[in-house]
Amino acid sequence: MKKSKEITVLFGQRVKALRLQAGLSQEAFADKCGLDRTYISGIERGVRNPTLEVIGVIADGLEIDFKTLFNF
Amino acid sequence: MKKSKEITVLFGQRVKALRLQAGLSQEAFADKCGLDRTYISGIERGVRNPTLEVIGVIADGLEIDFKTLFNF
Repeated sequence: MKKSKEITVLFGQRVKALRLQAGLSQEAFADKCGLDRTYISGIERGVRNPTLEVIGVIADGLEIDFKTLFNF
Repeated sequence: MKKSKEITVLFGQRVKALRLQAGLSQEAFADKCGLDRTYISGIERGVRNPTLEVIGVIADGLEIDFKTLFNF
């Protein structure tokens, strides 16, 4: 369980870093993805466990491929 | 929706290829992951939309990192 939690935390940190690199606010990024800002916030804090399809939406919103998104 | 479906299909094909490379049957792989064989089958066929935590379990079962798993 601990390990699984770490995965969501590491993923969230990666999403946040890439979003900031892209110069996007949480709100602008959420709008781009068609997701709620609070949902993006939860992902970045590692308290959400997004599905593969949502991860795909996030990769599209960051305009990167999966390989780059998971390079952490 | 079409695009999202493609993501699960591409991911499933990748999992299957890596499982076969590892010389594991679906049943042996499912046992290793602590998941049901029918769930692994569904992932490989692209009809399941696994969460990040399940994706982590799959990466552990394949003994690879995320970056390698998503190199497709």
